[in-house]
Parts: sequence; structure tokens; C-alpha cells
Amino acid sequence: MTATKWSEPKKNLMLFSGRAHTELGEAVARELGIELTPMTARDFANGEIFVRFEESVRGSDAFVIQSHTQPLNKWIMEQLIMIDALKRGSAKRITAILPFYPYARQDKKHRGREPISARLVADLLKAAGADRIVSVDLHTDQIQGFFDGPVDHMHAMPILTDYIKSNYSLDNIVVVSPDAGRVKVAEKWANTLGDAPLAFVHKTRSTEVANQIVANRVVGDVKGKTAVLLDDMIDTGGTIAGAVGVLRDAGAEDVIIACTHGVFSDPARERLSQCGAKEVITTDTLPQSTEGWENLTVLSIAPLLAKTIHEIFENGSVTDLFEGQA
Amino acid sequence: MTATKWSEPKKNLMLFSGRAHTELGEAVARELGIELTPMTARDFANGEIFVRFEESVRGSDAFVIQSHTQPLNKWIMEQLIMIDALKRGSAKRITAILPFYPYARQDKKHRGREPISARLVADLLKAAGADRIVSVDLHTDQIQGFFDGPVDHMHAMPILTDYIKSNYSLDNIVVVSPDAGRVKVAEKWANTLGDAPLAFVHKTRSTEVANQIVANRVVGDVKGKTAVLLDDMIDTGGTIAGAVGVLRDAGAEDVIIACTHGVFSDPARERLSQCGAKEVITTDTLPQSTEGWENLTVLSIAPLLAKTIHEIFENGSVTDLFEGQA
Amino acid sequence: MTATKWSEPKKNLMLFSGRAHTELGEAVARELGIELTPMTARDFANGEIFVRFEESVRGSDAFVIQSHTQPLNKWIMEQLIMIDALKRGSAKRITAILPFYPYARQDKKHRGREPISARLVADLLKAAGADRIVSVDLHTDQIQGFFDGPVDHMHAMPILTDYIKSNYSLDNIVVVSPDAGRVKVAEKWANTLGDAPLAFVHKTRSTEVANQIVANRVVGDVKGKTAVLLDDMIDTGGTIAGAVGVLRDAGAEDVIIACTHGVFSDPARERLSQCGAKEVITTDTLPQSTEGWENLTVLSIAPLLAKTIHEIFENGSVTDLFEGQA
Amino acid sequence: MTATKWSEPKKNLMLFSGRAHTELGEAVARELGIELTPMTARDFANGEIFVRFEESVRGSDAFVIQSHTQPLNKWIMEQLIMIDALKRGSAKRITAILPFYPYARQDKKHRGREPISARLVADLLKAAGADRIVSVDLHTDQIQGFFDGPVDHMHAMPILTDYIKSNYSLDNIVVVSPDAGRVKVAEKWANTLGDAPLAFVHKTRSTEVANQIVANRVVGDVKGKTAVLLDDMIDTGGTIAGAVGVLRDAGAEDVIIACTHGVFSDPARERLSQCGAKEVITTDTLPQSTEGWENLTVLSIAPLLAKTIHEIFENGSVTDLFEGQA
Amino acid sequence: MTATKWSEPKKNLMLFSGRAHTELGEAVARELGIELTPMTARDFANGEIFVRFEESVRGSDAFVIQSHTQPLNKWIMEQLIMIDALKRGSAKRITAILPFYPYARQDKKHRGREPISARLVADLLKAAGADRIVSVDLHTDQIQGFFDGPVDHMHAMPILTDYIKSNYSLDNIVVVSPDAGRVKVAEKWANTLGDAPLAFVHKTRSTEVANQIVANRVVGDVKGKTAVLLDDMIDTGGTIAGAVGVLRDAGAEDVIIACTHGVFSDPARERLSQCGAKEVITTDTLPQSTEGWENLTVLSIAPLLAKTIHEIFENGSVTDLFEGQA
Amino acid sequence: MTATKWSEPKKNLMLFSGRAHTELGEAVARELGIELTPMTARDFANGEIFVRFEESVRGSDAFVIQSHTQPLNKWIMEQLIMIDALKRGSAKRITAILPFYPYARQDKKHRGREPISARLVADLLKAAGADRIVSVDLHTDQIQGFFDGPVDHMHAMPILTDYIKSNYSLDNIVVVSPDAGRVKVAEKWANTLGDAPLAFVHKTRSTEVANQIVANRVVGDVKGKTAVLLDDMIDTGGTIAGAVGVLRDAGAEDVIIACTHGVFSDPARERLSQCGAKEVITTDTLPQSTEGWENLTVLSIAPLLAKTIHEIFENGSVTDLFEGQA
Repeated sequence: MTATKWSEPKKNLMLFSGRAHTELGEAVARELGIELTPMTARDFANGEIFVRFEESVRGSDAFVIQSHTQPLNKWIMEQLIMIDALKRGSAKRITAILPFYPYARQDKKHRGREPISARLVADLLKAAGADRIVSVDLHTDQIQGFFDGPVDHMHAMPILTDYIKSNYSLDNIVVVSPDAGRVKVAEKWANTLGDAPLAFVHKTRSTEVANQIVANRVVGDVKGKTAVLLDDMIDTGGTIAGAVGVLRDAGAEDVIIACTHGVFSDPARERLSQCGAKEVITTDTLPQSTEGWENLTVLSIAPLLAKTIHEIFENGSVTDLFEGQA
Repeated sequence: MTATKWSEPKKNLMLFSGRAHTELGEAVARELGIELTPMTARDFANGEIFVRFEESVRGSDAFVIQSHTQPLNKWIMEQLIMIDALKRGSAKRITAILPFYPYARQDKKHRGREPISARLVADLLKAAGADRIVSVDLHTDQIQGFFDGPVDHMHAMPILTDYIKSNYSLDNIVVVSPDAGRVKVAEKWANTLGDAPLAFVHKTRSTEVANQIVANRVVGDVKGKTAVLLDDMIDTGGTIAGAVGVLRDAGAEDVIIACTHGVFSDPARERLSQCGAKEVITTDTLPQSTEGWENLTVLSIAPLLAKTIHEIFENGSVTDLFEGQA
Repeated sequence: MTATKWSEPKKNLMLFSGRAHTELGEAVARELGIELTPMTARDFANGEIFVRFEESVRGSDAFVIQSHTQPLNKWIMEQLIMIDALKRGSAKRITAILPFYPYARQDKKHRGREPISARLVADLLKAAGADRIVSVDLHTDQIQGFFDGPVDHMHAMPILTDYIKSNYSLDNIVVVSPDAGRVKVAEKWANTLGDAPLAFVHKTRSTEVANQIVANRVVGDVKGKTAVLLDDMIDTGGTIAGAVGVLRDAGAEDVIIACTHGVFSDPARERLSQCGAKEVITTDTLPQSTEGWENLTVLSIAPLLAKTIHEIFENGSVTDLFEGQA
Repeated sequence: MTATKWSEPKKNLMLFSGRAHTELGEAVARELGIELTPMTARDFANGEIFVRFEESVRGSDAFVIQSHTQPLNKWIMEQLIMIDALKRGSAKRITAILPFYPYARQDKKHRGREPISARLVADLLKAAGADRIVSVDLHTDQIQGFFDGPVDHMHAMPILTDYIKSNYSLDNIVVVSPDAGRVKVAEKWANTLGDAPLAFVHKTRSTEVANQIVANRVVGDVKGKTAVLLDDMIDTGGTIAGAVGVLRDAGAEDVIIACTHGVFSDPARERLSQCGAKEVITTDTLPQSTEGWENLTVLSIAPLLAKTIHEIFENGSVTDLFEGQA
Repeated sequence: MTATKWSEPKKNLMLFSGRAHTELGEAVARELGIELTPMTARDFANGEIFVRFEESVRGSDAFVIQSHTQPLNKWIMEQLIMIDALKRGSAKRITAILPFYPYARQDKKHRGREPISARLVADLLKAAGADRIVSVDLHTDQIQGFFDGPVDHMHAMPILTDYIKSNYSLDNIVVVSPDAGRVKVAEKWANTLGDAPLAFVHKTRSTEVANQIVANRVVGDVKGKTAVLLDDMIDTGGTIAGAVGVLRDAGAEDVIIACTHGVFSDPARERLSQCGAKEVITTDTLPQSTEGWENLTVLSIAPLLAKTIHEIFENGSVTDLFEGQA
Repeated sequence: MTATKWSEPKKNLMLFSGRAHTELGEAVARELGIELTPMTARDFANGEIFVRFEESVRGSDAFVIQSHTQPLNKWIMEQLIMIDALKRGSAKRITAILPFYPYARQDKKHRGREPISARLVADLLKAAGADRIVSVDLHTDQIQGFFDGPVDHMHAMPILTDYIKSNYSLDNIVVVSPDAGRVKVAEKWANTLGDAPLAFVHKTRSTEVANQIVANRVVGDVKGKTAVLLDDMIDTGGTIAGAVGVLRDAGAEDVIIACTHGVFSDPARERLSQCGAKEVITTDTLPQSTEGWENLTVLSIAPLLAKTIHEIFENGSVTDLFEGQA
């Protein structure tokens, strides 16, 4: 009899999905060749969420995916509760996957006495027990720095630009940012799309009525070109639909809209299908339906997430997924 | 010119209310002789909440009241976001007031691989920036120990028992716990209500079918008595309505239901108004409506909360509010 | 020569025992087929404790068992010091085993200006470096939520009820809680013991002299039955011995006392051996001696602790030890 | 004799300056009508810094200003050491003032395996004991969210644009961003400068040689106009000097350069004085010298910092300093 | 009615004493002109400590004094529990006063796999809720750095040397360190006592038997002199009594022993009263009795502690108590 | 398809070196039979440091060595930034190696209002993400307790004393501490060097001019002996060179100087080569050059560091490297 008992450790990957968008969780699991860990989850009559895992999670390398669609705050709480249960159930490492990072637009105080809700979300994930975060196309890159731990920031641009390259001629393209804040991102797209020229829509205020925006001007040349109008996320679609009009007025021949996160809150579906854009391209970081919206194209983010999870689990290089750009 | 600038410090109390139940916030403010600090709050199209305070909160002794009614998770997030904004806006001290503590029923792991969501809520409040908590009739007293800081735990029992004393004769009363877990609380009520006798409803399982509850027995004597059936919270009302039936079957003459937190999720209103109870007494820790429910009595918690806030602000004794029992 | 050196990791379980009750530590080690890691421990003349491990603990999965008997505060400090030494000696993971959780009765503020010492103990363990806790029959389940990390909460009930099933007929049994606060637990025992009926002892105060308890009434029917009087812990035995008398007066034929934690502070041994109970059943979470106490039966908790440690070490399911009830 | 001793608390503001740029600290003190708290500070022979305050700092509201000029890392350490000394000397509240936030450009991982040094700086300040931060024109607004506590983010734009308004006609102005990433900021300037038109310099890569930038194109119309070329900081001046050339080539009549933080590392002074810009306008967040550089104008940030400190000390509104925009 | 309620804040000092040495607490209170805050404290039968304050502590500037005499670990826990109760009772600031810092000798790992218990004590105080520490003559000055917050380190040397100056001629004095580790401290005493000469006792090991100390040599000249033999603490007195013998053998005429912390564990009283020293001088940081020990002199530390508390409360300078040496 | 994916974990050791003294990092790597992980590191024009690792560090057991030579603060920041990059790049465990611990002399408050910079350095390392520390001959052993985690404290004494034993006769040696504070360390050396006699240099102040040191006296006998004058570090060499003179005056035949950390700030090289010492022995914890300094001997610390890293990586015993003394 000796003082020590030895054992060969094994690592096991377990994937958990919140209820917001289980199709995505299942697609990721399929790509990984595993199944989602079964979970009991239900809402109490007063809205409280209950979860319980059907298998032991002790020692696991746990990945918790949730898609932050409506009702957004409910799905945030569900993910936090799942993480708490994993922590208390002795998971070894907990990675929270937020394909669409909620509250990303509130990433600074625009004025005094405001919250920085994107930082708050990072703090809540930490408090619940998350060790690391995976997300896709954060509203601003700096959100990586809000979490006290590793953040793997994935990019959907290659998925979207590959699709554009396969379906459109690059000869006549101009890349357009819908406002001044996205010009930097548009520049990256332009480089990827054969060093296409660049333009953006500039809002100018009325000189007569305070704070009233009177005109949107296109800065840059779009005449006779196919404009690729991009954004990280489209919510109600007002800005984007407006930009399509401005681009048309400035002589753009065609407008293609591309975004990673198709939030599409009312009345986005109506606005975007009628705004004159030739095609709207997005991904399934949020649940999507093409029903009744002919020119919507949905590309799947699941293979990218699965590859990322695989590399994290195997301690490979996530950076290499983007040839050194992640 | 000297090296130091002196100033007389002043303390200022500021009261903030989430949007879940502003009537309660306003009632508390009225009791304190102040007004709620004006706040801009709105929901973005995708459900994200935005808040901003209309006045400087710098250096304030801030109290943030939220009522955790449906949609519960939204109101939790709103309170967390308000706290984050206060922290970043340099409030001196932040007290979160949760008249009804959400997720209080998940205060332990009933089985493995479950969360302890009541502890999670405490951790989230801490992570957001809350320095202290005020709550009323926690589901279990131990939840006080979940928060790493002062918790002022208020009791609505005196409000409810005073009402009963004023409206019913104590001579013929028996205090009844609806299940085995509340007998201890029932004992306190019994002591307050003239050392009334005690009873409880005991669930017994079927000996034939596993885990099936076949019968509810009353343990203790209720025959010919007015039963005061109490609970900290009533959600869908199934257990309580069932208990009324069992008490009636056991010979109770009248049944009065009293609870601090009237959650009253569907179909509670229907069940309780038709279950044969003479009166249902509750408080406004959650928004209440007596419309279409004649025998519902709602007592206000606002004076108790206002007194508590006043004592905290003035560094008085909250304990004295309960004559040494808080 | 490459940039990286590879190695096959191994996990090794090491078990450490404080000096309070080394027999228990040794029994657990025996069940696991290992030996306790040798440790030098001594008291300096002024009461300061010194410990040093005789073997390298680097990288180990360390389990530190201590039994919190008298002098309780000394053994708490010793366990904290052992954990500190393990942390600084680079143990990989530290699990504190507290078969009897000290200060568990102070799990809430009964009145204002009191500590919540059970939470404090959890905080001290965390501060010293404990990653997780194992305990048996916590005074209240909520104490699980006091520790910021995994808590494996073991139950001695199956050990105690198996013994009762083997030694007594279940036909005539009634399960009795000694006060209103334990009725819920008694209900679980009743279910396990063939859905036996339930009763409890209700304390009523004098109506003449404030705060004076004048009478203990049995609520429920015990006449002619064998009463199984249970509690999580018995300290001086006053309440329990009193309950035996009340049960006898109410016509109980026999009384069997069962508790997980036999603290048995003076004068418990005298009281309980003379109170008229047929048998007192307990476990060895604390050191026990049957010398001079004929009707005391001590069941060993060591196999349960050993199985728990084994499952934690091998990342198995602790929940399965209780068929889904842990 | 009573159990409590009462006292009237007083708040005292104390201002401390690191050695990097004491003129700024003194100017701020002068604006506040106080003196810097005397401090002994010296470098040991091996480069270790020693500081000691000459007066008691106990209970003070301490503001620690440091200017992060060369040798940058030394001045970071000095500020951290001063904060540590204040914490251990019992200052009541410690505000770190970093007019130029160091490492602000490393605010995200551009590629994998990089640090986020701007977040690290925030974490170091927190670890040392800073309760809050004051900074001017952060490289990106999101850096506010890196610090776990209040951040007062001041803007030098009004100081710079007021100067431009006083010295130039707004009729013929175009606001120019030197690259795609600053267009958003340029838009704010354009709004402030009479809704001036907007332009930016777009870098395009060679289609023949990978990653080689071959051309800078001006996007937007600058012909015949006075271009206000702005940036938050100018380091070696290469990008800015290049942009001046591109603007001149595109027909701009005059170019004025404006930046908050004039780092002016070699060979910035030479480049910028010879690049053809009419005037270079900056502030003294870093030490500046106009010697041998005729067209450099330095505006003082001291009044803004002094006002900010005053409002923080008196719990006034810092937001109001920017009419609701801070 | 306005949105804010204003109040004039007041600071109140409250002093709490553990039960280890209430005379010291009372003496300090007397010096401050206040009374100790009344507290209920008792031991449960199994050794658990219970405390409750008799008055509201909300908002107070609380000082908690405990003397760490035998049973040491009990008194540590009591102080931690008192601090927890103050934290939960909303004291504004909590200062732990440990006149004799427990476990100070375990301030480093002498060998591998040892704890650093002095750091652990600091961590436990922090975990319980202490904001600051006051202690007297720490075993090593570095222990100040173990606590994450302000530590006011008081020195008893002036009290002890003043006594020596008043009672002995300084002409013939030599200051002696009992071992190599205290020579630095002895040097300070020598400087204070008229630049007296210095000596120390050097232990040499046997060259024949490993690790056996065979001889103590005096390094320095003591012949015909009055030796002031000092130490920070004397426990069983073996080393000190031995040093007296060695000094006598080396020709010292008289030996006076001075120490701050008279632990005096058995058989110190016997040893020291019979070792040939002329006088033993100590303070009451620990409870002392001169009964049956004629040449023991006890000086009171209470005035020093009271002055320190007063300066902390009033935000004065503690450093000035030692003319710039604290 | 199952719910879990299994993998065999592997541990990989990766060694990273800051730029301060890459020769040492390379020597350690060579001893370990690996290569340093390639890293891009450069200084921006304004002094900001940028680092990026050339290989994936995910899951690695990372060791980060930096030598804290001039410019000291820069190299501290570089090490912190490297640690931050490793944390964000998902290294599994990060060990900071500081052969010479910076700011070790500021390990306590000598007077009020001073920092404890040695603790601050430990806090900064923790904040950046270091899990453990390795250092050599800390200025005081207590610094081990400043870091909240494992500290492996290595000793260079065996390396230095082995050299002395090989090159000098031990018969005539006396071990000398240059001041009162190092006598304890000198005692250990004396024991190792054949129980050599001991002496130290005692500074005495002028009795006429306050605070002026007028004389250094040797306490102990050095006449006709070879004095081994030791220190943990030598900075400008003033004290040591002075001590050589005092020893010579007291009749020492030869003086050998030995120190672990040869800081040798100006004018140390000149002073020490001309002070009359026969040989100066040091190690390469800091970069050394024997050019133009004939009697300087540099011993390598690399084998000791490599062995330590190997034991940490393989979970062996670091203590055994010193036969139970580490």
C-alpha cells in the first residue's frame, strides 16, 4: 500500500446548447461528430428557468452555446444558469460561446451616467464561472478586452466574401460602409474583394434645427457600380435600407447587403425585402427563416464554430483558422 | 495657497426604480418624501435594454428598487444594468432592493448537476456593483449568506398578522403550513397569533407506483377551526388550493390564505378565487390587481421599505424595525 | 532540438488527515487502498500549529480531511493551515473534506448584528486555497451555496435507515422530528421507511411570561408506535432527551434516536443513556466511543467518503452514489 | 462616558504628481488653488524608484497625475508605486489621472497570441489600488470598459476646435481623417466645425506584391479647401506627414494638423515642420516644446483636468463639462 | 418634493473587544474616553463561538481588538466572527487590532511543503472583512506586506527604552541580540540607548554530530557591562535563559531582559525568574501577571493603541507618533 | 455518435525569455534540451513594448524568464505584457521566473507613507496572470508570502560556497556580514563553510551630529583571517567596499566578496576592482561582463533554474534540489 493513487487523466469534450436556437447547437455537434449533452430545461410559471444536465459533467471540457435572439435577457440568464450548474457540477473548464454577443452596441458610455452593458455581460459570465469566451464578429474588437480571460474572436468575413466571390463578378464592385464608424471594416472587405474601391454614407446635421439629420451624402464614387453594403449586424434595418436608397440616388447599379448578425427585428424583413437590394446575405448566428423573403441568403456559421471548439479542445491554434488573422 | 483643499461632505439619498413595477417605487419615494430620480429607459428592437439617469449620481447613496415579476429575466438584467450605470457614474454606495428575491426556490442543489440560481443572482448583483441587498421574506433565511456583504432581510409577517388580528377573532384559529418545509415559519405565526395551535399537510407517496403522491394528510387538529394557511409565495396556487381542500375535508370551518409574495401565475387567480378560501391576503412586493378577484386583499410593503431605506441612509438600526428580530 | 518539451501527465490522489480524528482519515485511506500522506504536525508552546508534509505534493489531487470535534476552532485552523501549505506546495486541486461542517447552525442572522459563521467558514476555506468541499448532512442544504465552487453534499440517511430496516420492523414505525424545523427531513425518512406516518414536537410559549416555553406538544399520532426520532446533529442532547419524554407521555411504545453527527457534548452521554430511548444510532463523522454507553450504535461514514473521493478523482458521478439524489 | 465617539468628517483633496511632467501637475494645482503634495522621489542606482509623501495622506481624496512620456514604462511604474503608497497610507479614495493613456493602441488582439496591453494597464492600476481613472481622448472609447470602476473620459476636441474657430474661417474647411479608422471621429469634428464636409485617406494594397501598400487615395473632395487633418495622437508623424502630401496632391489649399496627444517621437518634429502643413495644434497632455518648431501651437489641458478634479471632489457632474457629452 | 434627500454625515468610532484579554480593551477604551460596545459572546457546548452586538453598528468606524493568547486559535476565530458580524451589520470601516500578531514566526517557508501561516492570517482577516490592521512589533517588518490594505505597525521600543533610561545608567550598557536574526533590531536599540555597543549570541553546530548545536558564543564584548538582552517575543524562554547564561559566562555584570510580547508559555515563568536576569520587562499586548514573579515589570501598551486609534479615526498621522519612524 | 469526445491530454513545456538578458534564457533552454519559443518583440517609437509569440501557446505549461537589469521598469512591463499575452492565448499555467526579484529592498515601510513595492510587484504579476513565481535568493525570505500562490525560492549559496570550497582553504576563514541585517544569512554560510567563525560590521552614529554615521566597527574577530564578505546583492558597492576597508583595518589578511545578484551600478565596477578584495564572486542572474575586471568570477545560475523548471513541469520535488532546505 502506497501513499498515492495514480490515474491516467482523460479529457472529454461536452457540448451544451441553450434553448434559444438548438438547431445551431445541433449543427455544431454534428460537425464535431458528437451529440449535445442532454439537458432538462424548463420555465417555471413565473418565468424562472430551471436546468439540469442528464449526465455527469465532472472533469469535462464544457462548451456552452447560446444564441442571443429574442427574448434576449431570458437567454442570457439561461446561459448564466447553465454555467453555474457546470461550475457546481465540477466541469474542468467552461467556455461560453456567444455567436452574437449581446449588448455589444453598448460598449462605451456615449454620454455620462450610462452603463457599459457589453462589459457587464463579460463580468456576469465571469461571475457565473465562465473561463473563456468564443464569439463571432464583435461589434468592436475592443470587447475582447472586456473579459478577464481568453477570448477567441472568430470572423465570418471569409464565409461572406467567399460567397460573394462565387456569385458576383469582382470587376465592378465598390465596398460601402453604411456610416462613418464602419469604414475601417469596409477597408478590410475591399482588400479581400480584389482591392475594390471604398465609399461610405456620411450623415450631416441640419444647420437650422439642432440635432436633426437632414441629409445623407455618399463620400466616394459609386456610380454604375455594384455596391456591397456591409455591417456587423442589422437590427430594424432602417439605416441600411436608407443607405440603399442613397446609393441608388448616387447612381449605384446594384446593391448587395451583407451582415454577420441578422437580427432583423420588425420591420426589418419588410424593409429589406422591399428596399431595392438585390440580395441580403447573412449567417445563422441567430435563428433565420427565408420563408417569404426570397432574396435572403443564410450561410452557416456552424463549421467555423466546430473547428474553433476542436482547436480549443485539442490545444491547437485558433489563429491558424484565419491564416494568422484571428 | 496650501497643499490641501477641504470640503464639508454631504450625503444624498437617491432612489431609482426599474420599470417592472414603478408604482411601488413611487410609493416608497412618497413615504420618504422624495422623488424617484428620473431615468431614460427603453428597449431596443432586439430586446436589449438601455438606461440613462437624468441627473448626476456622483457620490450618492443609491437605492435601486426592482420588482421581479414577469418577464422576470428582463427585470433582473435591467436592475443589473442600472447598477452598472451607477457604479460607472460614481455612486458612493449602491443598495439593490429586491422585494421579491428571484430564483429563491433554487437555493440548493436538489439533485446533482443543478445550479444554485439564488446564489448566482447574488453573485450577479455583486459583479454588477451592488454593495448591499434589501429583500423581504426570503424563501429561506440562508439566502442572506449567499451575498458577500450586508443583507437587510425584512419581514412582512407583522403586516399580515396585524391585518388578521384586526379582522378575525384569534380564539378559534389554527395556523397551517401547506407542506413539511414551512412548519417552522408556521410556528412563528402561531406564536404571534396568540399561541395558536399548529398543523401541516403531509404528502405521502403511493406504495404501488414509484414517486406518485397519492394522498395529502393533515397532521394536527383543524376540526371546526379557522385555518390560517400561509406561505412565503404562491405561484400557480396548485399546492395551496389543494391544501384548502384537504383542510376542508379535515373539518376546518374557514380557511384564510396569507402570503408575502403573490406571484399568481396562471391559473392562480382562477384557482384561488374558487378554492373555497374565505380571503387571500398578500402584499405588493409584486404588482397586484384586485380586479375580478373579490376576496383578494393587498397590503402595502412600501412603508416598510421606506423605513428600511431611511434607517440605512441615516445609519440607524434596521433591527429595531422588528423589535430585535431582523 | 525543438521549442517544446512534451510529457504524459498523470493524476495522483493524495489524502491528508488533520489530527482531530486520524482514525477516520485512516479508515478512508484503507477503503481507497492507499495510505495517508505522512505529515509532521505539532503545537508550539503558545498554541500555534505547525504542519509540514513529508512528501512532495506538487501536482497532486489533494483531499484534506478534518473532523471538527473539540477543540473545534483549533481543528478549523489546522485544516486551513494544511490547505495553505498544499497551495504553496503546488497541489493541483485541493478538496476540503468536512464530514461535520462546523458552525453550520449559524447559517443565517437570527437577529440583527449577528455573524453568518457558516458562510464565514466557507470564505475562510476559499481564502486558504480550497477548490471544493465535501461534507455530510449539512445542517441546512443551503450551505452548499455559501461556497464559491463545487460542493459535494453526501447523505448519511441511507446508512442509518438501512440499519433501522435491518434491525426493526417497519410496520409500527412513526418518524418524528424533534422540532418544527426538521419536519421536511423527517418526511424524507418517512418515505424511505415504508411511507411511515409523521409527527413532530411543537414548542408553545407561555401566554403569561414572555419568551418562556411552557409546553411541548406532539403534533401527529404516536400512540403505541415505535418512534424514530431523528436529527442531523445532537449536541448536549437536551432537546432530544426532552422529546423522548414527550413522546413517551404521548404513548409511544419505543423511541429510537438517529443522528448523523453525534457531537455529544456534556451532559449528552448521561442524558441520552438515561432518557429511556431504546437505542441511539449515529456515525463516526466525529470521534465516538461506546465505552460506558451500551445502547449507542456507531456506523462508519468512511466507505461513503472513500467512494466520494474516488468518484471525484476519477471524474465519475457522485450523484449516482445516491441514485440521483445527491 | 458613552460607547461611541462622534466626529464631523471632512473631505480633503490632495493632488500628487509623478516626475514625468511636473509642469502639468503644477498647472493643474494652480487652477485648483492648491499646491501639489510634496513628495520625495528618487531613482536607485539600478533604476528602482522610491517615493515617499511628505505629509499624511490618511483619509484624503487623492488624485495622482502622471504624464506618460518617455521613458514610458518607468513612469507607469512610478504611478503604480505612488498609488500603492497612497493605499497603504490610508488614502480614502485614489483617482489615477492619465492624460495620455499608455498602450492605448494595443486595445485588442490584432492577431492571435498578442497581449491587450491597454486592458493590462487598467488591471495594473486596479491591482495597485486605484479606485477610478481620469483620461483624455482615449484611442478608442471602449477602453473605458477595461477598468472595473468609474472612468471619466475627457475630450480635448472643444479646446482644439475653439482654437480653430478663432483662428480660421470655417467657410472653406474640409475635415480629413488620416485613415479609415478615424472617420467617425472626423464626423464629430465636422459637425462641430459648421457641418463641414468630410474626407479620408484610403490605403490600397498592391495587387502584385502581397501586403504592400502602393497608394493612398483621398476619398471625398478636398480641392481648393483648407483641410483640417486630425488624429488622437501623433507618434513619429509618418502617416500624418504622408497624408499632408496626398491632400496637397489632391488639391487641398492648406492643411492644418490637430491632435490631442503630441507624442512626437523622432523624427516627428522634423517631418511635421517640413511636411507643408500650415500649423500643427496639440495639447500638453505630454510635455511639449515649441523651440525650433515655429508652426507648433500648444494648448493647455490643465484647466479641463482641474475642472474635472473639482467636480469629482465635490460630487458634481463631469458630464456637464461637455454639455451632456462626456 | 425633490429627487434627493440630503443629510450631514457623522463618523462614529466604536471599539469592540474579544474575550481573550478584555482588560486591555477596557484600558484602551478608557484612554479614548469611550466604552467598549457591549457584546454578547458565548461558547456553545461543542466549542462554537457565538457573538452579537448589543447596539447598532451601522455606519460605524469599527475597531476590533483581540489579544492572541492561549487558546490562540479560538481567539483568532472569535475575532474573525466579530469582523464578519460587523461586515454584515454594515459597519463602514473595520480595523482589526492584533497587538501580538499570531503565527508571526511562520512568515516564510523554512523548507518546502510548509505553510506561510502569517500570510494566511492576513488572508483570513481580509476574507472576513477587515479593511485595515493595527499591530505592534511584528516578528518581521515584512508581515506588513502580507495584508492587502493599510497596516499600521506600532513600535513598543520607545516605551521599553524610556523605562530603561529612567531606571538604569546608560554608561555601562551593551545591547545584545539573542541570535543572529535580531542583530538589526538590536542596532536600533543601541542607537536609542546612547549609541551603546552591540553584541549577539552565535550558535555553532557540532562538527561531529550533524545538526547538533554544541556551543553558543558571544560575538562582541560584554565583559563587566550591563547587558540589555532583547527580543520581540519570548515564548518558553529557553533561548533567552540560555543567552543569559552565556552572557554571564562571558563576564556580563548584569542582564536585563526586554521584550514586547511576553508569551511566557510553560516553563518560561520558572526559567526566567531563575535564570539570573536582574529584571524582565515586557508589555501587556498579552495578559500578564506579576504574581509570584518579582522581577517582572509590565508596561502598558494601551496608551499607544489608543493614540493610534484616535489618529486613524481622525485621519491624523500615525507616523508622527514615532516622529517619522512608523 | 455519443455525447462526449475523448482525448489523451499532453503537457508541453514552453520557455519564453524577455529581451533583458536572452543569454540566460538560452542557457536555461539548452540545459532543458529545448529552444526558447520564438517571439516578436519590439519597442514603439514612444517606448511602448509590443510582443507576439510565433507559435500557438494554447494549453502550454509556460515559463517566462526575465532578468531585471537596467532599464528595470521596462523589463518589468515586458514580462507583464508577455504574461498577459500568454493568458489571453490560453496557456494552461504561467510561471514567472525572476532570477533577481526587482524592488526586493522595498519589502516593508521603513517609515510612514511609503509603498511596499516588492508586494506591488507580486500583485502586478498576479494581475497580469502569473500562477506561480520562481526566484533566487530573495532579499528577505518573507517576500515568498507576498505572492498569492506557489513561490519556488531557489538558493545560490551552494553554488557560491562550492566554488569557495574548491578554491580556498577553509581553515582560516571568517564569514562576515556587511551590516547587522545579514548576520543570520552569514550564520548559514558559516555553517556551510566548516562552521567558520562569524563577524559583522556595525555602524555607529555620531553622538554630536544627529543621524550622521561616524564609524563602522567590526564586531567579532577577523585578525589574520580570510574574510568571506557576503551579501544577497551588490548595487553601487559603497557599503561593501567600505566594509573591505574596515576589515583590512581590523587586520583581515584577505577579503573575498560573494553575492548572488551582481547589480554593479556605477561606480561599482571601479570601486570593487580597486577596493582591495582578492576576488569578487557572483552569478549571472543579471547580465555580467568580466571585461576589464580581472578578479570578477561569474558562476552560472542556468543549471539551477533548468532543474527547477524540470521539477515543476514533471511535478517532482523542488525541495529535494536543496536536500530539504528549499
